[in-house]
Amino acid sequence: MPVLGQNQYGKAATRVVRVARAGATHQLTDLTVQVALSGQLTEAHLVGSNAAVLPTDTMKNTVYVFARERGIASPEAFAAELARHFVTSQPTVERALVTVEEHRWERLADHSFVRSGQETRTARVAYRADRFEVLSGLTGLTVLNTTDSEFHGFARDAYTTLAETTDRVLATEVTAVWRHTAQDAETIAAADWNADYATARERLLAAFSGTYSYSLQQTLFAMASAVIETLPGVAEMRLSLPNKHHFLADLSPFGIANETGDGAVYLATEQPFGLIEATVLREGAEQRIPVELTSPA
Amino acid sequence: MPVLGQNQYGKAATRVVRVARAGATHQLTDLTVQVALSGQLTEAHLVGSNAAVLPTDTMKNTVYVFARERGIASPEAFAAELARHFVTSQPTVERALVTVEEHRWERLADHSFVRSGQETRTARVAYRADRFEVLSGLTGLTVLNTTDSEFHGFARDAYTTLAETTDRVLATEVTAVWRHTAQDAETIAAADWNADYATARERLLAAFSGTYSYSLQQTLFAMASAVIETLPGVAEMRLSLPNKHHFLADLSPFGIANETGDGAVYLATEQPFGLIEATVLREGAEQRIPVELTSPA
Amino acid sequence: MPVLGQNQYGKAATRVVRVARAGATHQLTDLTVQVALSGQLTEAHLVGSNAAVLPTDTMKNTVYVFARERGIASPEAFAAELARHFVTSQPTVERALVTVEEHRWERLADHSFVRSGQETRTARVAYRADRFEVLSGLTGLTVLNTTDSEFHGFARDAYTTLAETTDRVLATEVTAVWRHTAQDAETIAAADWNADYATARERLLAAFSGTYSYSLQQTLFAMASAVIETLPGVAEMRLSLPNKHHFLADLSPFGIANETGDGAVYLATEQPFGLIEATVLREGAEQRIPVELTSPA
Amino acid sequence: MPVLGQNQYGKAATRVVRVARAGATHQLTDLTVQVALSGQLTEAHLVGSNAAVLPTDTMKNTVYVFARERGIASPEAFAAELARHFVTSQPTVERALVTVEEHRWERLADHSFVRSGQETRTARVAYRADRFEVLSGLTGLTVLNTTDSEFHGFARDAYTTLAETTDRVLATEVTAVWRHTAQDAETIAAADWNADYATARERLLAAFSGTYSYSLQQTLFAMASAVIETLPGVAEMRLSLPNKHHFLADLSPFGIANETGDGAVYLATEQPFGLIEATVLREGAEQRIPVELTSPA
Repeated sequence: MPVLGQNQYGKAATRVVRVARAGATHQLTDLTVQVALSGQLTEAHLVGSNAAVLPTDTMKNTVYVFARERGIASPEAFAAELARHFVTSQPTVERALVTVEEHRWERLADHSFVRSGQETRTARVAYRADRFEVLSGLTGLTVLNTTDSEFHGFARDAYTTLAETTDRVLATEVTAVWRHTAQDAETIAAADWNADYATARERLLAAFSGTYSYSLQQTLFAMASAVIETLPGVAEMRLSLPNKHHFLADLSPFGIANETGDGAVYLATEQPFGLIEATVLREGAEQRIPVELTSPA
Repeated sequence: MPVLGQNQYGKAATRVVRVARAGATHQLTDLTVQVALSGQLTEAHLVGSNAAVLPTDTMKNTVYVFARERGIASPEAFAAELARHFVTSQPTVERALVTVEEHRWERLADHSFVRSGQETRTARVAYRADRFEVLSGLTGLTVLNTTDSEFHGFARDAYTTLAETTDRVLATEVTAVWRHTAQDAETIAAADWNADYATARERLLAAFSGTYSYSLQQTLFAMASAVIETLPGVAEMRLSLPNKHHFLADLSPFGIANETGDGAVYLATEQPFGLIEATVLREGAEQRIPVELTSPA
Repeated sequence: MPVLGQNQYGKAATRVVRVARAGATHQLTDLTVQVALSGQLTEAHLVGSNAAVLPTDTMKNTVYVFARERGIASPEAFAAELARHFVTSQPTVERALVTVEEHRWERLADHSFVRSGQETRTARVAYRADRFEVLSGLTGLTVLNTTDSEFHGFARDAYTTLAETTDRVLATEVTAVWRHTAQDAETIAAADWNADYATARERLLAAFSGTYSYSLQQTLFAMASAVIETLPGVAEMRLSLPNKHHFLADLSPFGIANETGDGAVYLATEQPFGLIEATVLREGAEQRIPVELTSPA
Repeated sequence: MPVLGQNQYGKAATRVVRVARAGATHQLTDLTVQVALSGQLTEAHLVGSNAAVLPTDTMKNTVYVFARERGIASPEAFAAELARHFVTSQPTVERALVTVEEHRWERLADHSFVRSGQETRTARVAYRADRFEVLSGLTGLTVLNTTDSEFHGFARDAYTTLAETTDRVLATEVTAVWRHTAQDAETIAAADWNADYATARERLLAAFSGTYSYSLQQTLFAMASAVIETLPGVAEMRLSLPNKHHFLADLSPFGIANETGDGAVYLATEQPFGLIEATVLREGAEQRIPVELTSPA
């Protein structure tokens, strides 16, 4: 007889928008929320008893109620409140995992906004046995350096044809997840998650643009290190960096030079692509961010 | 025997990136180019003779060569040069249609960039018989007003249940195409397409945020009018505006009020959605932008 | 003062699923419906009066009511009933355009189904002044021939480097739209749209696989002709065929031959891609399918 | 000083198509391959030395060479050969993870094919220290039952409004990953992976359609159990089942009943959606499939 292993269930893709309009200048918060609960669910799987199954529809309702009644101070704080609620209010729920994506808007006018940027801020809070684990992050942040990137001196085998280069375009679409040191309800409430996020994003961008790079691996390490060195509460960071290749167009059949330099023309390709992934840890920290979180394949 | 009607062929999705690096501060241009040619292609369709078929691979090569040799002053000028090239250099090509999408980047540092915004600037130039038709546009520009939008007094029938509202969130993702009055090679070269684009985009945003709206139709008309009134060279504008519905979450089952006002919480939905489309014309101008261009379904 | 040109508005992406369960064997119909209405909407655009604006929410309701009360005999018949309803019941509506996508399911068991295929059947019915125009079609039908495709003897210019080939892989993702000769309510009710669709699909596939091809243009013409010759009610067909390139991998750097033949290995690429589009007409028929309908760019 | 944790790099989205044409009847294999290598990469990250970095471009070349020279007996066998190659041929590579997606085609004629179904078969092989771990799976398999699904007796709290039901539509899009007991090169070569895959897929479908369901959790357990009970080499299965909600359209405002039964009409919604995930184990087996592999959020 097969046996039930790890399991969880919940509501994904709940889209909640909240408008604060205390004065003439409105504030807009735009989230996608996912809830996943684990606990005493063996009966549900084995004999079809739903006595321990809080409907996923209820989770959706709860997201809207909490957004209305408590506001959304930050993705992290909002996720933490929701996660604790489900565990502390439902006797059969042992662990809650709440993931929030925040969509960015820029102000146009007092009550007008335009979607800005392509990146999404993320937060993922797990709550179990009175303990929170908080992951912050972002995805979809696309950056490009037109120079200060080399790639050579690499290993070779019988199938290696790649030419070495001392000046290439380096571009990637950053997915980053960083773990904060252990939190309780008080430290979560006291922290300035939005300021920390802004710092982390700024450090990632500065390290990307400021690193003279011999490989995307080196750039990755520099980016993660910059955040860890700046934010004392970050224990580890996981980065997943696809190499968005820009190849110099070969115009030699037409007698036209197209070398790195002014006016160089590149083919931007989507696939195949290199994919560089690593966790960088504060010295002494444990690695806890799941590798597959940023790299499901 | 079936008969060949309108036909065209070409290369789509050619991704070209050009870097100007005259000094320390580099410039980046990032385009997706599509070429479609029409002409004496009956033999190709009916008897498999390719004597009049310039390979689509050649079109791709030409895009890279022109980007390298002539630069990319603007999507419109680049499209126009390509379109004219194919018609004037190939005796069997009678018409060329070149479509360009420009992807936006913002500067991070001298040689570093970050993809910005979600919208794409578009240009579409047709060339035939020494005559250019230039369409400019944008797609993917998402905007939202938190107030100053009403919707009531509408028609009703037996299937109407929608409540009237005097204060709702209004959000849309703008697709706009505007046609310039007739152009020749000289006027295309002389125009400042980038400045005109910036003006059009700014007018669209200002009209969206500044219009007190009784319907998305009214907002649409105000947006298009603002561009036509500001840019004398624009003969017509087509707008396609999906209504990105934000519904007030119904929290009454929980005894919680959630009315428009401070702290209101909305369900953002993807589908179904309203879709408002119209062409607005300068007085006396002919309607020439195909309706299906912005509304294929 | 800018002037209002062509305009329409409606509800897109209404997803309706209907289950017929007269006996143990259930039937499933799965549609996405889009409605667009035109008529006396100048006031709505210019002065914000909604007196002639039937809410798009009502259109959605009507789709569900009609599916419930009248059933869905075919996408074409369902679209026609809806289109006529809006024009005949609303004095300010002059034209209705209803587009239906049907998603395919295959039977697993009496009341169980699995989504099958990647293609979507489409229908688009316009109604105005007691006259219907019916377009049928499909999109997303991906097909591939491993041989019997050549490409050579093509035009050349200074930027042509493509090698000629007498045996290549030919693959495409078919978008087809065909127009039926004029219809009234009686002929729409009497026609067997589902049988016609099955015939058209079968003819497209047979012509694709059975045509020895010297170009995708030739294959396109053969495909459209096969339908027109088989279905007497089809006046014209528009096909849009992206060339899904499969290039022989160049393994010569490793001393490995990789020519067409047993065991040949291909790079399947997504972009850039060739795009071949044409309308084929029954002799004497007028071309009425908008070119942009299958080729918005 | 930050410290390097788990890291890997490789090539994603290599698209390889192979045609076997021993006789008139051709065979088509269509894969997307991803390679990820781990090993002595600290120098690459910390000081920009690439001496241990085999270029990702080489991995892509190797995929094509292996496909050409060794053929593709199954996704699992192909992934295993590639994984072992990188570890055994590169002294600095300690672990290789090769993921393969197979795209399905159905035969139209001797050398003609049509893309069939929407699901993708997956295989993921890790090789380290002479040991293989083989995961098989599929994604994108969408199934629906029109009856034999109930949901009631669930937990309730202050935010629960969901009505109980004894007859609902149950639909999901299956993502499944199953782990095979430990393998070496001989057992991998000897196994009939394609037959096993066909069996697993058939068991999943039969269990979905054949289970009278009180919850999607119960259906999930039945599906995984059916595979484990049929295939002795499967140690565990992870399923991720989004609940593709189909809600009865509320037509009561129009005086129309729309209850479960003949002619019932449903709203098919995309979001929010329930998400049910679990691992089911053969008795005594260890849980090794990473939870995040099928549930990155």
